[in-house]
Formats: sequence, structure tokens, C-alpha cells
Amino acid sequence: MKKIDKLIDRIIEYRCPISVGLDPNLDLIPDAFKKDYYNCKDPFKAIENIFFNFNKSVIDVIYDQVPAIKPQIAFYEAYGLSGIKAFQKTVDYAHKMGLIVIEDGKRNDISSTAAAYATGHLGVSKLLTSSSPAFNVDFLTVNPYLGSDGLDPFIIQCELYEKGIFILVKTSNDSGHEIQNAKVNTSTFLYENIAKYINCNSYSTIGNYGYSSIGAVVGATFPEEAKNLRKLMPKSLFLVPGYGAQGGTAEDVVSCFNSDGLGAIINSSRGIIYSYMNDSSPSSVSFYEFEDTICNAVQVMKNNINQALHAYFSNMVY
Amino acid sequence: MKKIDKLIDRIIEYRCPISVGLDPNLDLIPDAFKKDYYNCKDPFKAIENIFFNFNKSVIDVIYDQVPAIKPQIAFYEAYGLSGIKAFQKTVDYAHKMGLIVIEDGKRNDISSTAAAYATGHLGVSKLLTSSSPAFNVDFLTVNPYLGSDGLDPFIIQCELYEKGIFILVKTSNDSGHEIQNAKVNTSTFLYENIAKYINCNSYSTIGNYGYSSIGAVVGATFPEEAKNLRKLMPKSLFLVPGYGAQGGTAEDVVSCFNSDGLGAIINSSRGIIYSYMNDSSPSSVSFYEFEDTICNAVQVMKNNINQALHAYFSNMVY
Repeated sequence: MKKIDKLIDRIIEYRCPISVGLDPNLDLIPDAFKKDYYNCKDPFKAIENIFFNFNKSVIDVIYDQVPAIKPQIAFYEAYGLSGIKAFQKTVDYAHKMGLIVIEDGKRNDISSTAAAYATGHLGVSKLLTSSSPAFNVDFLTVNPYLGSDGLDPFIIQCELYEKGIFILVKTSNDSGHEIQNAKVNTSTFLYENIAKYINCNSYSTIGNYGYSSIGAVVGATFPEEAKNLRKLMPKSLFLVPGYGAQGGTAEDVVSCFNSDGLGAIINSSRGIIYSYMNDSSPSSVSFYEFEDTICNAVQVMKNNINQALHAYFSNMVY
Repeated sequence: MKKIDKLIDRIIEYRCPISVGLDPNLDLIPDAFKKDYYNCKDPFKAIENIFFNFNKSVIDVIYDQVPAIKPQIAFYEAYGLSGIKAFQKTVDYAHKMGLIVIEDGKRNDISSTAAAYATGHLGVSKLLTSSSPAFNVDFLTVNPYLGSDGLDPFIIQCELYEKGIFILVKTSNDSGHEIQNAKVNTSTFLYENIAKYINCNSYSTIGNYGYSSIGAVVGATFPEEAKNLRKLMPKSLFLVPGYGAQGGTAEDVVSCFNSDGLGAIINSSRGIIYSYMNDSSPSSVSFYEFEDTICNAVQVMKNNINQALHAYFSNMVY
């Protein structure tokens, strides 16, 4: 079964087009997760355990409410090998709990090197006398700066193993326009050309819901551009960062969806996993309060988005 | 001491503006490195050992001839955690042997996430009660698609820890132009704008030789564009991929240098580490032949480049 179909299945089942960003930050993780590790002989091993235990707690709260997690691998690579061990344990645990894993890795390189990334993250690694998946995530974010020969190898792995990618089109940050809004001719922005590439390549991997395994990253912070991109890539799921902490609202993200209420998954990281900070602090929050705030934050975000979708679209699937 | 100064010191000392790409490929690694591992219970552990032993052999041949290695982390991530263990062991061993490590990771993300990558790869990770470097490489390649707020955090780590980065400007592959040659106005290519950003940001980290810690990736395959970029970024070292296997010649790369014969480091991966394939095969090559071909390939590349440089420039530093 294509992961894009599994993802949309879950979005409909849970009525929840949301991914939770698992971005562990030592300063924001409650002290309750750290107390056993202050005397750990290997401080990097302590980080590995703290990050995994933190993620496990989040997953235990959300696994039957949201379809997917989006771990941002930068926050794990910040601690080298130990961080990546925590990343891999998180991926495996999330899978065990039935969650879909969208790795936010923004990987990119030229042809054969891109193929190595695609194999390690999405595909199956050829060993001496056998083969086996390595990172084994379901979706990976991919950067298009090297052009199509750096993207094609990722698409091949998606076709082979029913995985998916989200190619960066229009990112949520302030300075993305410096590159992405370059004009490729008098009337076309660079990011629109990437959208056209994605659309051309989306048709080889269409699943049961009519959506392709080749998706797009489109920030919540540019709703007008999103409306245009929605038309340019009708078959692609949008992975939408920038909701909440970065300023995107439920009204803003409506333009990332198609009129059936499908077509996008909205990510929130800090707004969910560190929502306890609204009323508490790392040193004072209890496990119970921490888990309770996550559960509430997901419910609020889900209700706000669904309310906005129902206000705009009359033929919603759910 | 700034790593950019150490790198140029070594280029002059060895008269060798070359980095060796350590891109382990199981199909091309001689069988001599694999024979002890066919019965290994953990096939990923076998890969870790094979990759490290292979790299160690290359390093033992080149450490007093070339200034730097450039491991492409994609080839390690292709084997997940085990690959990254081999990567880290390679970095540490290269440092022990006095080599400079240029990690080809093409990392990129928005502001605070870019800071996490920069900390993990170049900087110092804050642990519970202490701090320590994680990957601890000397230079990292960085992708500019997210604009300046995704680049600035890398520059901060370079300033703090005397490390360096190479920002992708004009890559060596066929399809890079699809993005990089977008016009930001009627007369400027996108990649030229990135060059201007690099130049503006290069002056805060100028070392003893007049070169900045903020460098640029400029492919060997576009010599005319390189000539223009050399003028736009006089203070930046160019990391030049695409030599040899990808088609770039010694004559082609001359335009990446300044007239003192400094200003660029030319990378070769397959052309050096798999040069034994010209006369042999993975199953038949001996350790001795393998090491001998690497040594010869470095000498030939070095002589060809130096000959071309001396033909064009009369005021060479070496």
C-alpha cells in the first residue's frame, strides 16, 4: 500500500490533517525527563535517552489522534551520532504505534549521490549478501537547488518502495523569497517552475485517493502564493510548515487544500510539543500536565483547521 | 587558528590544491576489504567496518600528500546509523592524521533549524552539565535555497569556532542550471546573487592569507561562469567538484583560482579512490596495488593542475 494512501486514510479516519513536529530542544524539554540523567557518565548517551523518552511521551499521547509525526533531523544531528540514535529509535517506535513518519531532512545532491540519500532514507540498502532498509522513513523532504537530476533518484525510490517525498517549493521563512522568487522569465517565479516539475512527475505515483507520492512543501505564511500553487499541483499533497509559532493561521492554510478538504497536511512542532510553556515552565511542569497540554493543543489545532475548512468548502470528504 | 588558514597552509606546503572525496561504494570497494565480513552476524556492522577500513587505507596513503578529505555523507547515510558510525570514525581518524575534513552534507533549513545543523556539524553541543563538539568537521557544504536566514546561523558557528563553510553557488551537474540560472532581474543569474551574498559575508572571517571562512561550491564543468564568479567572490575559497570522472579538466579549473595560484581546492573522488579500476577489478586487486594506484592518481592530478596553473599565472605563491 502506498504511504500516500495510508496517510490520507488516517487523515480521514482521524479527521485530522496534522503532523506533529518532533523537534527535541534540551532547553524546552521538561526537567522531569532529565532528572535521572544528570549523573550519567556519557553525556551524549544521556541526550539520546532524554530525546527518545521525550518523543515517546509525545507519541503515546498523539498516536491515535494524528496521522503523522515530522521529526526534524537537524535537532538530532545537533548531537551527532547519539542524536541520530534517538532519531532512529523514534522512527521505529512511531512505526510500532502505527504513525507515519515524515523525515524533515531537506536532503539534496547530484544524481548518484542523491540516489545514496534516497536509498538510505526511503529505500533498501544493499549489504554484502542481503539487503535491508536503513532509516526506513515513509516520507522525506527534499531540496531542489540542484535541479531535476538531483530529484529524479528520490522519485525512483518512491516508485520502488511506495514511499513519498515533499519537494521544497515555497518555504515559510522570511528570506526564502531571495531565492525562490527569482524570475525564470518575465512572468514566472522560480518556485512556480519547481511546482511544474513536481506536477509533471506526480502522475506516475497516483494513489487511490488521486494524490501522488510526490508532494510539495508550501509554507503556511504565504496564502496567496499557496492558492496559485494549489492550482499548479492538483495531484500533490502539500506539507505545510509555519502554522502557529511562525504566524500561519487556520484561515491561512485553507488555500493549501483542495475543495474536497484533502490535499494538505499542516505541521506544528513547538505549538504542540512545548504548549505546556503557555502556563508552566520546564522546571515545574509534571508529566501529567505535559501530556495534557499536548492533547489539548492537538484538539484545538484540529478543530480550528476543520472549522475553517468547513467554512470554505461544501464538499468535504469528512 | 582558523581552519581556512590551516587549509591554505597545507595547500602551499604540499603544493597540492586537492581534496580527496571519500565516497565509499560497496560495489567498487576491493574484495580484499570485504573478505573477513561475509559471515558477520550483523550485516550493517560489517558495512561500518568495511567502510572505515577502506577509508583508513586511503587516508594512510594520502595524509602527507593532500591537505583535505571530502567525505560525502550521503554514501554513509545510505546505510543509516552504521554508515554514520563509519563516517564519524573516518572524521576522527583523518583528524588524528592531520587532515582537514570537508563534510559534503549540503545541509539547509530555516533559521533556528539551520542553527541546529550548524551546531552539530561545526560547533559545540550543549549537554546537560557540559558541552562538547559532536560531528566536529572543519568545513561543511551548505545549500542556499532557503535564503539568508538559513545561511546566517552557519556563518555564526564559523565565526565562533574558526570553522568554515562552502555555500553551493554553481554545481557541477547537468541540471543545476534549471534552478541556478534563473534570472533575478534581466541581467543577473540567481547563482550570481548567491555569490554576492557570500562576498558580502566573507569579510568578517578573513584569515592570514586573505581568504574567508565562507567559501563557495563552483563546479569544474562551467569554466566561463567560474571566471565571472572568481571576480564576484575574490575573498572566498572555491570548493570545486566535477574534476575527472564528471568531465572537468586541469585547464577548466584554472579559472577557479586567483592569479597567486590560490583560491580553490579541487576535489576528486572516484578518480582517485577507485583509480585501480582502470587496470584491475574489485575481485583481483591487492591491497598493495590499490594503495599504489591512489598514490599515483594523486600525483598525476597534482602535476596536471600545477602545470596548468603555472602556464597561466606568473606570480604563483608556490
